[in-house]
Amino acid sequence: MPATPAALIGGTCYAGTGTFSVTITIASQKTMAVNLPPLPVLHPVPGIRLGTTRAGMRKPDRRDLVLIECAPGCQAAAVFTRNRFCAAPVTVAQEHLAGRMPRALIINTGCANAGTGVEGLSDARRSCEAVAAELGCDAREILPFSTGVIGERLPIDRLVAGLPGCVRALTEEGWSEAAHGIMTTDTQPKGSSRRLIISGKTVTVTGIAKGAGMICPNMATMLAFVATDAAVPGVVLQQTLGRAANESFNRISVDGDTSTNDACVLIASGKSGLAIGEAGGATYEAFYAAVRDVLADLAQAIVRDAEGATKFITIEVEQGASQDDCLEVAYTIAHSPLVKTAFFASDPNWGRILAAIGRARLAQLDVDKVSIYLEDVCIVRNGARAAEYTEAQGQAVMSRPEIRMRIALGSGSARARLWTCDLSHDYVRINAEYRT
Amino acid sequence: MPATPAALIGGTCYAGTGTFSVTITIASQKTMAVNLPPLPVLHPVPGIRLGTTRAGMRKPDRRDLVLIECAPGCQAAAVFTRNRFCAAPVTVAQEHLAGRMPRALIINTGCANAGTGVEGLSDARRSCEAVAAELGCDAREILPFSTGVIGERLPIDRLVAGLPGCVRALTEEGWSEAAHGIMTTDTQPKGSSRRLIISGKTVTVTGIAKGAGMICPNMATMLAFVATDAAVPGVVLQQTLGRAANESFNRISVDGDTSTNDACVLIASGKSGLAIGEAGGATYEAFYAAVRDVLADLAQAIVRDAEGATKFITIEVEQGASQDDCLEVAYTIAHSPLVKTAFFASDPNWGRILAAIGRARLAQLDVDKVSIYLEDVCIVRNGARAAEYTEAQGQAVMSRPEIRMRIALGSGSARARLWTCDLSHDYVRINAEYRT
Repeated sequence: MPATPAALIGGTCYAGTGTFSVTITIASQKTMAVNLPPLPVLHPVPGIRLGTTRAGMRKPDRRDLVLIECAPGCQAAAVFTRNRFCAAPVTVAQEHLAGRMPRALIINTGCANAGTGVEGLSDARRSCEAVAAELGCDAREILPFSTGVIGERLPIDRLVAGLPGCVRALTEEGWSEAAHGIMTTDTQPKGSSRRLIISGKTVTVTGIAKGAGMICPNMATMLAFVATDAAVPGVVLQQTLGRAANESFNRISVDGDTSTNDACVLIASGKSGLAIGEAGGATYEAFYAAVRDVLADLAQAIVRDAEGATKFITIEVEQGASQDDCLEVAYTIAHSPLVKTAFFASDPNWGRILAAIGRARLAQLDVDKVSIYLEDVCIVRNGARAAEYTEAQGQAVMSRPEIRMRIALGSGSARARLWTCDLSHDYVRINAEYRT
Repeated sequence: MPATPAALIGGTCYAGTGTFSVTITIASQKTMAVNLPPLPVLHPVPGIRLGTTRAGMRKPDRRDLVLIECAPGCQAAAVFTRNRFCAAPVTVAQEHLAGRMPRALIINTGCANAGTGVEGLSDARRSCEAVAAELGCDAREILPFSTGVIGERLPIDRLVAGLPGCVRALTEEGWSEAAHGIMTTDTQPKGSSRRLIISGKTVTVTGIAKGAGMICPNMATMLAFVATDAAVPGVVLQQTLGRAANESFNRISVDGDTSTNDACVLIASGKSGLAIGEAGGATYEAFYAAVRDVLADLAQAIVRDAEGATKFITIEVEQGASQDDCLEVAYTIAHSPLVKTAFFASDPNWGRILAAIGRARLAQLDVDKVSIYLEDVCIVRNGARAAEYTEAQGQAVMSRPEIRMRIALGSGSARARLWTCDLSHDYVRINAEYRT
């Protein structure tokens, strides 16, 4: 696989050996509304096959078991939850990733296999052994993932019984089925795909994700599986995923609750023949942008489909002393039940936003320099209600399904952005009824 | 006023000059249910008069303006919100308290006078001037307090027009009327009273409070006014209030939102003739216990009457490396929307509790040592589901209106306790409709 150092300027890429063009085809979800559009075209990724089946893991007759098979030679990177009570499959996946390339990922819904102690670890290992027996490889080449109710034993017998169905279903065209197969309280499947032509080589990045509640990732979100046919060294792949997760999954919150099972995996099969070199070069940046965009699509999709959500809210905090300060303010607003219910009610109750900023844990804040905007409407200027602001203006913005809130702290030049949603009756209903 | 050093042993108090008995009469709310019992007997505090009127501050024909007059020579202590966007009356009250004893407190509901900039400060000062003119004292001897909607100007003309009515109504028997007069979204008035006999002298501690939402005090809660006729030096009074607030108002949370207007004032008139000396002595501890109990009653009353609450939950975290660690775990659980909705649903979904503990920001946590109890039922032992636990046991506890949850971290000997409530449909409804 040739390494092609290149510099990207505008739409044209100048390589060391000549000039060539870059064409980018976008096949991702529209982000015009809280309600997600149907699943977009998910381009196959050469080297990656997916098989989905109905294993009856928790409920009968629903797609709930997914096998993702990677061709030999694939590189893989992953980020996992930082919740200290990480689930058994997270522990096993981390063990298996250390020093070995995965041949397959096995993903079940219905049971998170979290809070299950040594038996949970044993169940997760047994699932890997069963997959390895089916595929004729080592159990340590299998990565397990689970999502669903915490605290119940994994129904390992049903999982094992479902595996042959997964294997029979394996196909490079299996992304859409798999997107359905990993859903829990999601109302819609989530996927995103980018196809780029760089140096005359077609490169694909395709991913799927699930998640609607217990969403405040601190590393990655519930479950996301992204693959590319670029050839990427393992170290670079991990850097790429970490950086992209920090611009996507680590910038969303539904309810502030970080899950025990969060995981995001990025696989590179190398089948496109395009080699991605060191981070920093122009080829790399073109590739990185595609990965980041896919992850951002998936992260946004999770917020758009969040439990009970009726509003998709972008919070931008700028003029902060540090990015940590900006994130602290953004998360404090995003986690305030009072702010979230005001959004649900389309009520421009900016006093609640102000109060949230005021209680954020910052070392220093000059409240007289704080300004708040809803879209382009300035609501608070220099710490108090803007003179020209009218309730009608605020009301008009708050009634939209997509709202951008901008906070200027007036203390520096750092910035951060995150995506969140409102808190509705349905959030309470869904989570009060979750296990019934 | 004589100083009477004394040592309290059991129910009997041994003073330097002889032996005398201590009799404590409790006249506080029952804490048997989320629903508060009617307001208890609120004993008058000699030296303190209260007058309540209907000033039409926001809505017609409801008690919304309260004047609390203090006899000359009263000492006062106060704790205020740490929200950086503190309201104008908080700023003015802090100014006026510096180096001067207050002669009166003026409290309005309907408008928080927060986020109102320099005009808000001017309005707060004008309210003090108007009260001073009525009472014939200096405006700097008046402390203003406001609660209600953030971001609107104080209707100062209506406040001033209401003052004569407050003055006419002034009486030492005015506590119950005042408890009604400071309510906003509270469904019931909140008060507590203790009467003690120490060294043959009757001492009273009586207080009222309001608050139901935007409750996560970081110093004090929404508004609480407590008075005693003990004679207490200013420094000791402030220490007493700070310590008692840390065992009451600073240990509750409804929604994690710290208000801009939180304030708690403790006034000592000295009229009982009993002098409370240095902190630490037995007389002091008997007095302190009464103050702490009144504050704890009021803090609990706020949680019991929290917006939409159907459950009163005590969270005790023990075996922590530090009290800060215990509080971090307790607040993370208390603020988890998933835990709160599970309580609402009477669902013993302990995986959500586990996940909340796992994401708490602790420097160190050994998850294999964590145990969780609901009342006496052990649900999680050493990081995993307890072998003997059954869903029926958890269900039985979760169905109660009062639930005690105990977390043992297994990392030390520190402990902390706080009170919180569940998250119900009504919380969303109340806060979505708040300004309509």
